[in-house]
Amino acid sequence: VEFELIERIRRRVARRDDVALGIGDDAALLRVPSGMELVVATDTLNAGVHFPPETAPSDIGWKALAVNLSDLASMGATPAWFTLSLCLPAPDPEWLDAFLDGALALANEHQVSLVGGDTTRGPLSISITALGFVSVGQALRRDGANVGDDVWITGSPGDAAAALSQWRAGHDMDPALRARLDRPTPRLAAGLALRGLAHACIDVSDGLLADLGHVLYASGVGARIDVMHLPFSSALADAFPRIAQRQELQLAGGDDYELCFTAPPDRRGAILDALVACDTAATRIGQVESEPGVRVIGADGALWQGKIVGWDHFAGASR
Amino acid sequence: VEFELIERIRRRVARRDDVALGIGDDAALLRVPSGMELVVATDTLNAGVHFPPETAPSDIGWKALAVNLSDLASMGATPAWFTLSLCLPAPDPEWLDAFLDGALALANEHQVSLVGGDTTRGPLSISITALGFVSVGQALRRDGANVGDDVWITGSPGDAAAALSQWRAGHDMDPALRARLDRPTPRLAAGLALRGLAHACIDVSDGLLADLGHVLYASGVGARIDVMHLPFSSALADAFPRIAQRQELQLAGGDDYELCFTAPPDRRGAILDALVACDTAATRIGQVESEPGVRVIGADGALWQGKIVGWDHFAGASR
Repeated sequence: VEFELIERIRRRVARRDDVALGIGDDAALLRVPSGMELVVATDTLNAGVHFPPETAPSDIGWKALAVNLSDLASMGATPAWFTLSLCLPAPDPEWLDAFLDGALALANEHQVSLVGGDTTRGPLSISITALGFVSVGQALRRDGANVGDDVWITGSPGDAAAALSQWRAGHDMDPALRARLDRPTPRLAAGLALRGLAHACIDVSDGLLADLGHVLYASGVGARIDVMHLPFSSALADAFPRIAQRQELQLAGGDDYELCFTAPPDRRGAILDALVACDTAATRIGQVESEPGVRVIGADGALWQGKIVGWDHFAGASR
Repeated sequence: VEFELIERIRRRVARRDDVALGIGDDAALLRVPSGMELVVATDTLNAGVHFPPETAPSDIGWKALAVNLSDLASMGATPAWFTLSLCLPAPDPEWLDAFLDGALALANEHQVSLVGGDTTRGPLSISITALGFVSVGQALRRDGANVGDDVWITGSPGDAAAALSQWRAGHDMDPALRARLDRPTPRLAAGLALRGLAHACIDVSDGLLADLGHVLYASGVGARIDVMHLPFSSALADAFPRIAQRQELQLAGGDDYELCFTAPPDRRGAILDALVACDTAATRIGQVESEPGVRVIGADGALWQGKIVGWDHFAGASR
């Protein structure tokens, strides 16, 4: 049965010239261009923890790959290949086909090729390892933020958390918010454009403040964030008209997969130009400071008193 | 909590010079030597499917890495790095430490470095992606078997299946057999030694006949196997004195992670010399033929009539 599933996958996969040997042997053989570092990210999604169990299989496929490509985006890397480890409750060709519809749509969009993996039996879980390249020394890391840097965010955070909040409350999810939860956009072009401009970068999976906190901790600095500068979608404003609640979703909610990065103020123009060229909005939301920690400034100019809880992958039962 | 677990892992990991950035960012940055192809394998182990639930955590750690290193071994690759995606029912530092004891013991033995991954919440499952190198064009593949080749097996197959058979029957497992089930030896030195000698190679995870079948199918050939040539351990003979039962375990049982390979008869001496140099036994057990399929010759010289069932990862419930 596993053999048939793997054949089903193999028939649908696009090949790349740098894949010397793809699906069907004990391992894949791949060619990394010279002068490039290999960039490797692994992320697993479990049903009921990382997505609502009733999520459409095609959306699960999209998202499982998207969260991994997002990790490469945040490094400024070009994605090339991925492996897929798929744990299914039962062999289900229809489910698999729909899953592949979503995963391969995103893969084809970025010319990324599935090169191997396995299928096993158990509760639904998808583990993907994404592989890509970046020129030696050019990767965007978490540990490069400097005091005085601006803090930036691409797009508008909070939509995915808002959809999840509606789902948790037993409401129908707003379609626009739900699309951000189910089909996040890995900011690959933006990540590439930010090489040589950003000092540090991360993708927002655990929550804006939590992920910014990882950057600041790794860089040995702190930051001040002005919540009134946080861009928000009209869908978010419509669904959560109370400002405090909306801001909590924006600051604490994960799953947006926008890029949060820091860069010196003298590059503001260059950054906006670079991101406009790849059709990605970005907004300055604060400054890097020497004092550790994140200080959030509210509408009144005083420290924001909202509750900030980062996304904890072991807190799934509460979702 | 995830952060603490990851810190716990990071503190114990040995670094390699070719790891520009390891655990702690969105992705790892790795340096593949020029002239080398990247070799990538992914294998997942689920509790109750791929190992008995009561398996010691240190053995689970060893085995989860071993099955992936075995895939690199069967390609003739040198392992370098791995990522670990660990799904745990609850954050349990003691369990994690024991798991790492096993995984890192094997990793250190082969100078392999853990470079990333994630921890999630759910039923116990371990997904590892192993990365290594092989000189361009030197990899051992499944599709190179030629008519007239000898069929070889390293070590003695059947011990792991024998242990599992005892476990399934509710008996105590023989310690020597159980060690083969819980702590398989990836045949890395043998895989390296066989480059330029073997025509095709695979590691025995699904069962000797099933895995040989993959090689023959990929190569468009068939084979004849003489069961009387199958080497067996004294532990296996003691535990399963009935020859038919023992041979069934040897032919159908997976989980041995020995290498099954084919090579032309004029390399017999060179192969034995190369494998003696890395302290690995190997035995000729048959010949590649043009007729597709595997013909098993029994003790009486007639076609063997035993029942051959390959290891099916979706058949876990029956184990």
